Parts: sequence; structure tokens; C-alpha cells
Amino acid sequence: MSNTTQDKNIMAYETVALDDENNALVILDQTKLPSSTKLVNLHTAQEIWDAIYLLKVRGAPAIGVAAAFGIYLLAKGIEAQDYDTFYREFCRQKEYLNSARPTAVNLSWALNRMEQVCVDNKDLPVSEIKQRLKEAAIAIKEEDIRVCKAIGEHGLTLVKPGDGILTHCNAGQLATCKYGTATAPIYLGQERGYNFRVFADETRPLLQGARLTAYELQASGVDVTLICDNMSATVMRNGWVNAVFVGCDRVAANGDTANKIGTSVVATVAKRYNVPFYVCAPTSTIDMNTPTGADITIEQRPAHEVTDMWYEKPMAPAGVKVFNPAFDVTDHDLITGIVTEYGVMRAPYEESFRKLFERKASEENKKL
Amino acid sequence: MSNTTQDKNIMAYETVALDDENNALVILDQTKLPSSTKLVNLHTAQEIWDAIYLLKVRGAPAIGVAAAFGIYLLAKGIEAQDYDTFYREFCRQKEYLNSARPTAVNLSWALNRMEQVCVDNKDLPVSEIKQRLKEAAIAIKEEDIRVCKAIGEHGLTLVKPGDGILTHCNAGQLATCKYGTATAPIYLGQERGYNFRVFADETRPLLQGARLTAYELQASGVDVTLICDNMSATVMRNGWVNAVFVGCDRVAANGDTANKIGTSVVATVAKRYNVPFYVCAPTSTIDMNTPTGADITIEQRPAHEVTDMWYEKPMAPAGVKVFNPAFDVTDHDLITGIVTEYGVMRAPYEESFRKLFERKASEENKKL
Repeated sequence: MSNTTQDKNIMAYETVALDDENNALVILDQTKLPSSTKLVNLHTAQEIWDAIYLLKVRGAPAIGVAAAFGIYLLAKGIEAQDYDTFYREFCRQKEYLNSARPTAVNLSWALNRMEQVCVDNKDLPVSEIKQRLKEAAIAIKEEDIRVCKAIGEHGLTLVKPGDGILTHCNAGQLATCKYGTATAPIYLGQERGYNFRVFADETRPLLQGARLTAYELQASGVDVTLICDNMSATVMRNGWVNAVFVGCDRVAANGDTANKIGTSVVATVAKRYNVPFYVCAPTSTIDMNTPTGADITIEQRPAHEVTDMWYEKPMAPAGVKVFNPAFDVTDHDLITGIVTEYGVMRAPYEESFRKLFERKASEENKKL
Repeated sequence: MSNTTQDKNIMAYETVALDDENNALVILDQTKLPSSTKLVNLHTAQEIWDAIYLLKVRGAPAIGVAAAFGIYLLAKGIEAQDYDTFYREFCRQKEYLNSARPTAVNLSWALNRMEQVCVDNKDLPVSEIKQRLKEAAIAIKEEDIRVCKAIGEHGLTLVKPGDGILTHCNAGQLATCKYGTATAPIYLGQERGYNFRVFADETRPLLQGARLTAYELQASGVDVTLICDNMSATVMRNGWVNAVFVGCDRVAANGDTANKIGTSVVATVAKRYNVPFYVCAPTSTIDMNTPTGADITIEQRPAHEVTDMWYEKPMAPAGVKVFNPAFDVTDHDLITGIVTEYGVMRAPYEESFRKLFERKASEENKKL
């Protein structure tokens, strides 16, 4: 991984990487996209905290990996040779990083997993603990890539070369370490010459589809066409879309799925035009403790996201009331399949998920 | 009508008005909305042409009325007292105004109707012809208001006080002389204390919903909430919408309707949530020579409408492919009713329209 700032094909870089030799966490600065592809080297706790806080790195899996590499690098810099002093300093740094985005589950999940590595290896020399932390951080990244790739493999069985694929928001490489979730079948297909034609919804209000998905697909040589969210019916009516792939924020036990606002609109339109609608979901996002979509709380966001950000002048009357939910719930009856790293789940989802988790537990037991 | 530029409640003004005493066509400059409510007095042919060309006045009915008032004022300024000289000069001015937006049907329709007034009254003194032209222009405006109001009355029978109404794009007062088409039931309800709660889709890419509909409804004291186009499913799922009213550009003989891009998405979502979906259509937009929606050509517009107009920086990668259709077709099976000035048409539409036009012809015959 180069240390210099360059404008190149995004797929030549990873969203998050470790440059251990130079004690650097290397991230692709997503706040500069799509106008410039800038790699940033982060060294200090403050730099890493800022990068997470300022969304230079975003997407739950990518944040988790950045935090794991970050805390490893900070631990590596601790001079203490006795465990207690080392561990105290480790926890101080960990709490600091964890405060960057308190609600991001993957952030605390990854940091807790790293802390556990210290605790589990307290009897080893500090230098050895540092080595184990590095291995653990790399393992978190590899697991993310493995899960995304497996989702891609299963997703790829649902489409054929030359197909048209529509996606909404960004559940892409930029939200993960590689492949993404919704984009994983697209990238694997790209590697294998499938020549997909992809339609990226711009995804108002924050335009993740235009800024990130269209960007990363274009940079990877995928044939991508940007559309406004309200054009999905037209491209489907024209027969240009063979499948929809979207990511998700949480899947309820009955298969109802929360994802970026507008996802359920795409699903409804897809149903009308008989286009299969697939949700790409690592098993970690399936929450058996949430019975249905009605039990998922939808975050409301500020009005200015909708009314501001326009070039010449205000595009909405001053003080207008705005409703701005960040997510919506797609009912399970609109979902053709849920693509996990273990395969494609079909309705009835509650039963499919039960079997999935039984299999997962059994495989994990075998590993132990 | 005041001659001065003022910031006031829009409903205190009309979109297009004649200030005969001051030889002025008075328009509300729509390019300044929503940041300022500016009335502009137009006197010369060049000023009127510019206002139409630059979309200071927009919306087919409003353009027609502006052209009628405009050509009347220009005719009034012709000094010739003999018909032939007067008529030659009239036609020269008419052709000039007509070139402002060559594809706008209402522009040439209104100008042709005004020319016919000259021809029909050629034996009268020129001063008398000018008076007839004024009366004809006022009649065109009154007809527009009468049609919109009748649509509002019929539309109002479909909802009840306190209802939630969703609309897409701007088929409002700003596109007509008063009431609008899709907004006519809302304004009439407002006058009668119905206390509707209205949701205005922002309508990407050109944001007519945010810039114009949210603006004019808010200025009129209507309880309006701005949403992104991809939020329609959420507000309907929440049970907040009792009816959708939209305008239209053309209705085919079988009821298929072309309207602003995204209309068919709203219709599809409304069907899922059992929300009645109504198209407000003056009979002049029903085209019995177009058998179905498949026969309607959809205008494609430039990519920059989707990719540009953002405040800080580009929001899409440079050179990305964009699909930007200006309209879409809503299939007749998604339409609960088509609200005309003669009443609410129901499926089967071809039969309803045939009866409608028979009735219209019979009423016009009675007038003759």
C-alpha cells in the first residue's frame, strides 16, 4: 500500500488497510468522494478518532475494521512493558476511539473483541500481546471480506451474465473492506466477465448512491447508470432490470428488513414488475430478538438534509415542515430472498433463519 | 393588482394578471421562488418573450394566459387604424411570442385563438378589435380558473376534512391561473376549513415539489410537509395519506397517464397501501388519438439535471452515465379515478371518456 496521495481506480485500494511498517492506518477518505480519490495515513489517536467522527471512513463493517487496526497501532505505541500499565493505557485509548461514534455497533464490537485479546493473553509478554492484537485485527478484516465474498458467491447464483441489476444507497465496498454486501455479486460477476448493467439510485437526501455507489462501480469498470430514486419504475417497466440487490441495517425474525429510506419503495415497484428483490445480509444483521419490522425504531434526521445542499439558492421555502426518516421497513412478502454468507434464505424466513443459526452454531462448535 | 415588487402571501396574487391601466402583464417570477416572491411587470414584446423563455412563467395553462394577455397588450400598442396594417403587425408580434417555447402547446393554442378574434372581427374598427382581444384574453383566463375550480369541486367529493393528501411535482396554482389542477381540491378544502395535511414529494431532479408546491401551499396556510420522493411508502405505511392527487401531461384513451417522472412510483406504492390515486386532468389533456401509454413518447433530458446543482462539490462521479426521463407512464389499473371539470371518470376509461366527450359536445352545441 502506497503512502502517497493518488487519484487512481478505487479497486486498486482497499477502504481500510494497515501499513504496519509505517505505523499507519490507511483509509480512502470518503468525504472527498466522488471528486477525488485520496488515501490518508492516520497515525495518532486523534487522527483516527477524527476520521471516524468525520465519516472519512463509514459503513458499519469498515468502521469496525478501522477501529481494530487503530487500536492495534495505538497499543503498539505503548511503551510500558508490564501488563497492568499496558492494559490501563490500552483501555484509555479504546474508550477514546469508542467515543467517536457511540451508536455505531461495529465500533464497540470490534474494540471489545480487541480488548478481549489483551485479557485472554495477559500472561504473555506485552510484545507478544501486541502481535496477537495485530493478528486479531487482521482476522476481523479477513472475516469481513470472507463474509462479503460468500454473500457475493450466493448472490451470483441468482443472476446471469448480461443481467441488469438495480441497487439503492451504498452497501458497497466503501462500506466494508472489500466487495460490499449488495455489490458483492456485482464485483464477483465483474471479475468473471458477467458484464452486468447496473442502475444506481441516487438515494436522497444524502446521495450515497450518486456519491459512493456510482463512484465505486464506475471506478471498477462496471457499466453503471445513475438514476433518481423516482425512476426505478421506468427502468423496470423498460425491462432493463433482472434483479434488485440492496443491503440492510437490521433484519427482523420474520424477514422484515430495515434499510436506507426508499428501499421499500424499490421493493414495491420490483414486485409490480416481477423483478426479484434480494436483501444482502451478513448473519450478524439478522436479529432474532426483533420479531417484526414494526419493532424496529426508525431514526428521524434533521430537515436541512432535505432542504439545503443546493448550489444556487434555497430549493424549499424557509421554515417548511420536513419529514426525514433515515430508514424504512420492507415487509418480508416483498423480499424474494435474503442472501447471507451461508446461502440464500427464503420464506418462511423465521424457519429459514432458525436452521441457519443452528448450522452456524454447529460449524462454530466444530471449530472449537 | 399592485405594480410594486413585494414579498407577500402568494395567494394574495395570481400567477398571471393583466394591469390594463398600466399596460402591464403582471407575473409572479417563478425563477425567484422559493426565496423571494417577486411580481414583475412586463410591458414590451421582448420582456414578455423573455419571461416565457426563461420560465419566469411556466405551466401550460399559465403560459397560455400570459401569451393571451401579452399579445393583447402588444396589439393595444399598435398605432395603425386600418385593419390590414394592424393585422400584419399583430401577426408579426404573435409569431415572435410563439417562438419563446415552440413546443408548448398552450402557447400556440392561446395565440391562435387570439388571432382568430382579429379575423372574426375584421370589419370592426381597430379600437373595437382591441376591446374584443382583451375580452378574449380574460375569457381564456376565466376558463382556466373555471376548469381548475370544477376539478377542485369534483376532487373534494373524494376526501373528507382532516384527510392526509400526497401530491407529486407541481400541478398547482403556479402552473395555472388559480387553484391548479392537483392542488384544486386542496385549496377549495382550505377555503372551507377542511384542514388537510398535505405531503409534497420534492420531485427530483428539478424539485418542482420542493420549490413550487411546498412553497405555494405553505404561503396559502396549508399544512404541508416536504418529503423526498423515496419516502412515499413510509408516510402511506404510517397511515397518514388518505388520497393522492397528481396532475398530468397527457391521458391516453385507455386511461394510461403520462406525468412527471416518479408519478407511477407513487401510484404503485399507493396501490400497495390501498390509498386511492387520482389524476386531475382538464379534458383538454385527454387525447383519444393516443390509444395507450405505450404510444406516448417520453422526453429524455440532460444528465446535468441529476448530477449538478449541489452546493459544496460534485455529488456524482465525473462523466457517469445518467438516465433522466422527464415523465413516466402510470398504467390505468393503478388509477382510482381521473378528475375532470365534468366529474370523476372511472374505469373502464375508454367508455367513460367517450361519454364525457359526447356530453361536452352536446353542452357546447347548446351554447351555440
